[in-house]
Amino acid sequence: MAGNVFGEIFRVMTFGESHGPAIGCVIDGVPPGLELSTGDIQKDLDRRRPGQSEVTTRRDEGDTVEILSGVFEGRTTGTSLALLIRNSDQRSQDYAALKDVFRPGHADQAYYQKFGIRDYRGGGRSSGRETAARVAAGAVAKKMLAVRGIKVLAYTLAVSDVRASTIDLDVIEQNMVRAPELKAAEEMVGRIKDAQSRGDSLGGIIETVVLGCPAGLGDPVFDKLDARLSHAMMSIGAVKGIEFGAGFAVAQMPGSVNNDELAIDNGRIKTRHNFAGGISGGISSGEPIVFRMAVKPTSSISIKQTAATIEGHLSEIEIQGRHDPCLCPRIVPVVEAMAALVLADAILIQQSIH
Amino acid sequence: MAGNVFGEIFRVMTFGESHGPAIGCVIDGVPPGLELSTGDIQKDLDRRRPGQSEVTTRRDEGDTVEILSGVFEGRTTGTSLALLIRNSDQRSQDYAALKDVFRPGHADQAYYQKFGIRDYRGGGRSSGRETAARVAAGAVAKKMLAVRGIKVLAYTLAVSDVRASTIDLDVIEQNMVRAPELKAAEEMVGRIKDAQSRGDSLGGIIETVVLGCPAGLGDPVFDKLDARLSHAMMSIGAVKGIEFGAGFAVAQMPGSVNNDELAIDNGRIKTRHNFAGGISGGISSGEPIVFRMAVKPTSSISIKQTAATIEGHLSEIEIQGRHDPCLCPRIVPVVEAMAALVLADAILIQQSIH
Amino acid sequence: MAGNVFGEIFRVMTFGESHGPAIGCVIDGVPPGLELSTGDIQKDLDRRRPGQSEVTTRRDEGDTVEILSGVFEGRTTGTSLALLIRNSDQRSQDYAALKDVFRPGHADQAYYQKFGIRDYRGGGRSSGRETAARVAAGAVAKKMLAVRGIKVLAYTLAVSDVRASTIDLDVIEQNMVRAPELKAAEEMVGRIKDAQSRGDSLGGIIETVVLGCPAGLGDPVFDKLDARLSHAMMSIGAVKGIEFGAGFAVAQMPGSVNNDELAIDNGRIKTRHNFAGGISGGISSGEPIVFRMAVKPTSSISIKQTAATIEGHLSEIEIQGRHDPCLCPRIVPVVEAMAALVLADAILIQQSIH
Amino acid sequence: MAGNVFGEIFRVMTFGESHGPAIGCVIDGVPPGLELSTGDIQKDLDRRRPGQSEVTTRRDEGDTVEILSGVFEGRTTGTSLALLIRNSDQRSQDYAALKDVFRPGHADQAYYQKFGIRDYRGGGRSSGRETAARVAAGAVAKKMLAVRGIKVLAYTLAVSDVRASTIDLDVIEQNMVRAPELKAAEEMVGRIKDAQSRGDSLGGIIETVVLGCPAGLGDPVFDKLDARLSHAMMSIGAVKGIEFGAGFAVAQMPGSVNNDELAIDNGRIKTRHNFAGGISGGISSGEPIVFRMAVKPTSSISIKQTAATIEGHLSEIEIQGRHDPCLCPRIVPVVEAMAALVLADAILIQQSIH
Repeated sequence: MAGNVFGEIFRVMTFGESHGPAIGCVIDGVPPGLELSTGDIQKDLDRRRPGQSEVTTRRDEGDTVEILSGVFEGRTTGTSLALLIRNSDQRSQDYAALKDVFRPGHADQAYYQKFGIRDYRGGGRSSGRETAARVAAGAVAKKMLAVRGIKVLAYTLAVSDVRASTIDLDVIEQNMVRAPELKAAEEMVGRIKDAQSRGDSLGGIIETVVLGCPAGLGDPVFDKLDARLSHAMMSIGAVKGIEFGAGFAVAQMPGSVNNDELAIDNGRIKTRHNFAGGISGGISSGEPIVFRMAVKPTSSISIKQTAATIEGHLSEIEIQGRHDPCLCPRIVPVVEAMAALVLADAILIQQSIH
Repeated sequence: MAGNVFGEIFRVMTFGESHGPAIGCVIDGVPPGLELSTGDIQKDLDRRRPGQSEVTTRRDEGDTVEILSGVFEGRTTGTSLALLIRNSDQRSQDYAALKDVFRPGHADQAYYQKFGIRDYRGGGRSSGRETAARVAAGAVAKKMLAVRGIKVLAYTLAVSDVRASTIDLDVIEQNMVRAPELKAAEEMVGRIKDAQSRGDSLGGIIETVVLGCPAGLGDPVFDKLDARLSHAMMSIGAVKGIEFGAGFAVAQMPGSVNNDELAIDNGRIKTRHNFAGGISGGISSGEPIVFRMAVKPTSSISIKQTAATIEGHLSEIEIQGRHDPCLCPRIVPVVEAMAALVLADAILIQQSIH
Repeated sequence: MAGNVFGEIFRVMTFGESHGPAIGCVIDGVPPGLELSTGDIQKDLDRRRPGQSEVTTRRDEGDTVEILSGVFEGRTTGTSLALLIRNSDQRSQDYAALKDVFRPGHADQAYYQKFGIRDYRGGGRSSGRETAARVAAGAVAKKMLAVRGIKVLAYTLAVSDVRASTIDLDVIEQNMVRAPELKAAEEMVGRIKDAQSRGDSLGGIIETVVLGCPAGLGDPVFDKLDARLSHAMMSIGAVKGIEFGAGFAVAQMPGSVNNDELAIDNGRIKTRHNFAGGISGGISSGEPIVFRMAVKPTSSISIKQTAATIEGHLSEIEIQGRHDPCLCPRIVPVVEAMAALVLADAILIQQSIH
Repeated sequence: MAGNVFGEIFRVMTFGESHGPAIGCVIDGVPPGLELSTGDIQKDLDRRRPGQSEVTTRRDEGDTVEILSGVFEGRTTGTSLALLIRNSDQRSQDYAALKDVFRPGHADQAYYQKFGIRDYRGGGRSSGRETAARVAAGAVAKKMLAVRGIKVLAYTLAVSDVRASTIDLDVIEQNMVRAPELKAAEEMVGRIKDAQSRGDSLGGIIETVVLGCPAGLGDPVFDKLDARLSHAMMSIGAVKGIEFGAGFAVAQMPGSVNNDELAIDNGRIKTRHNFAGGISGGISSGEPIVFRMAVKPTSSISIKQTAATIEGHLSEIEIQGRHDPCLCPRIVPVVEAMAALVLADAILIQQSIH
């Protein structure tokens, strides 16, 4: 309701502000008996962590996770699981200058209009820092998926106008931008550094593939799998659009093409092009789930801009500090986490009726 | 959970299959004291109704709504409101031939994989017919919005490769395709008739504008207004993508452009281009909310296609019957309804904390 | 939220007022493949139906149920299931005299204070008539339980100061008051007729036994099985208290007694007295679930009483019409229905994690 | 769903086991702008804390609370609020002997049957220790109520067969058992010490009074205020029954008595006896809300008892350790907390529709 809860059975509540003492989450509905250690979670936190490469923010947070409950002798107990990450870098004084200013492209004014409160410490709850809690929760979901042979992989398909032309899932973690093609990755890094040197930032496109997903997940009519995934993805700050399979291209296809050709593959019916992106009528079909998201350029740039004051006037602003010149590399694990949360939940929902 | 409920406070549960006795919904959480008559609901049902023009299906359903509860002496009472629409045209024998066949592009196989049940009567619950219940519920939400001066308008921005180049909200209901430009509308109608004559179908793009929406709606971090709207929109069959404001174009903008220029307009801060689509950090900013959706071409076409049988073989199929050659004109009121449901709910959620 | 929804996975939304056109419900989350006919539902509606015996109201409603969706070829499809009961007896003019009066012991004033609306037609939504929708929904849940060998039985343990001293589940449906002992039943009937002749009404105690319930149902810490059952039972109008197993008597037991003696019965651990009422730590233990509820006497009596007016004055009132002199006989199927809803839901929740 | 979440808008998720690193909760839906400090929470934690008097367990936990998020400059921000309490006393080795034994009167076997996991460390999640998180959350709710002039007071009405005969709310915190009468308190303490000396334990009755509650709270038909309060109270371990107002006594009242006499008091309609306990038709009437709960004697006693082993045999057990000889004194703040959570939530729900 108030928006910090995600999921129906596999249900996460996250908390924490950018410059408060800690961030974290509690997960209810994790099935008992699942093997889980802090290492499982830390691995993904490290992929999201600031300061990991030349093209991410230099703000340095170790982001060490602690499991507070729900695990006993290395296995989940079926009770609620709490994960805690202390904020190591709480220099909120850096933000005192922003106390009465709404930064352009940020949610500062929106939060103020909604809550009547101005938490100026680095965006407070609206900071991308909250996504660390998502990644932690998602890592637990991923463990549940792994047991079932399901794999969620996201990658940077495009940065600005550079787009990967081939997809090699094995190279994603071999390059700083998490692109699925090394040549494109190199170009992307170049573009990002260039923008960074001008104090500017770049947007991009993230593509996600889910492999091994069984047929039957998703709950029509309102909680179709694509509807839930869209909810999840669009809840990530900076995401401005999402499309499945052929996506916006379907608008220009005739039905005779879009219906896709059927074929039998190892005794199993499949389509030739997977135009539907692995989801039919809101239900997973057993084919790979594929979707793409538009990621806007980072709002925090060091170029001088016009901002607004809390009293309703315009003013000039130059944002200092340590910001990501392109969000894509660090959003990749967040996207995977959110997709994993949706799928883990959809599995439990499907189990409940059979 | 099981997917037939939408909303948190303003909460709708819909029911009904294409060829069962009736479809409808129950709405819980409608505030008391709202003026409401069947006319308010019938008006939108008529806009969604089959058989309304040359470019929609000729299946003819009167779709007359009955209010069964929740209204007394012309006003809502605050108790649950039930709306009933009898199905007048239940020729399920037309579908006996499909009993063991999964139609290409349809959810037939997906439903079978999920539920283990084959309701072959015109798609059963997966039929677009269920959206009549959404439109009925949305009409109640629209009344709640109207009292607050909020208006939701959707229109067919594009059909296949024909796209409106100007937006005139006043002409939407003056043309069969519900386009915002008469010249484009004419071309779209031509394209649709042409496809129809070949037994084929076309896709398109729907754009939605919400006017008069107050700032402060939407609930970070997971229930951001755009996340909720995306959930709602992607739950409509045939929708394969959604984007807000500048949408996928942000991927190629630098931050210095995407941050948008601020200006003071009548003492109120606004952006020059509304690149964010009226939603900032997941919260409505007070600017018009703008989003676009990709609508795939109708799956039911009369061209001969390859289908799959329930036993896992391929077979040829020619779908007869009465189908929409393009879904856009009739999806418009469904889109408005779903947007209205999200906004009515967001308003009640926002009211709850203040 | 707004209160007309019950359950988490097996989820019911009910609607309807005493004197509106119809009452009914929609159920989401019914597992697919369950055999279901109107007969299954009608059977329990007939047990709740007014006019069934000398000790119930003479208001005569046939209460015929229609299944509007969710069932195909005699089996549930896994989609939402709508049940409709038309009101045959809508003499709302009988109530015009009550337009500006709040009846003592009724919810008239409370509804007015909450909603700001006065639906004076026989109590509107606050009428016991809404429980017909609960019974209809509960009948579907009972079918789900029957498949698993679970049986829910409620009976009138006491009316006023007459209390059954033995429990014979076979005689419950053989007497008008649904007591588990024929001798007590006779006395209860005498007491009720006597009160009725004075224009007065009587209260009583309902006891419920659930047989065949598997161990493991209920979800600590907040959704313990007894917590959920209490929620369900206390939501029935006229119920003022509930106790499980030894109930209030535990207050006077030492721990050494209340801990109950353990024994092995057919290789299964059980307690000697079932003081816990079949629920331990909020989880079903496999022993019979036993609870009792206090039912207040019917508020509508024909003795002259002091009422309050909508303007805040006192006035005299004599309620005419056809009312139950004791609610117990007709509450029995309502209690069973609510218990069945809780258990069906608890089973689906338990299935979801295993 | 999985049971560790309570509330709809004011929504709490708790976590933590008796002997894990920490317990705590996250609260979503706390309205922004509420003054809140750790002192507000600590005060109630100290009332629940073990080791506070001669008649509570000597296990000594400081139970110091830390606010991790949701508060900025002394006020709530409207974002999720996390509260953490480290467990200082984690001697889980004490429990190694219980590894394969299910203690009588405890939830050991039930948890094992549900989850298939045996967390033998002092009951794990089933330990009463989890109620510290409830008290912490409830303290936040109490602050919200205090602003509105609403006060929740619980007290020990009876211990074993000693029952207070007068109610003086001012003396509750002046005696170890939290009784509303000093004379009775003295007797209760005597009884408890006596039982303790025998290695036994005692049960009792807690009564709760809510003062200043506005009319209109509670959501018929399923989420009536008494239904929600019952859900909340019955979710507290050791509670076996609840009754409102006249409670079980209504079973023996005729309607002419139970309907209660109306009177005008300062221009406001009220009843003479408040038999309904301040709730009419599931909605608060504006009169004091009154309910009583049966609390069973502590299950952990040092008298030798028969236990069951994980392999299904009987065995003898003598529970050592530090246990409360009567739960009532320490349950009082837990009861208040749960009542406050229900009321805070009901207020937000009521605000949402007006």
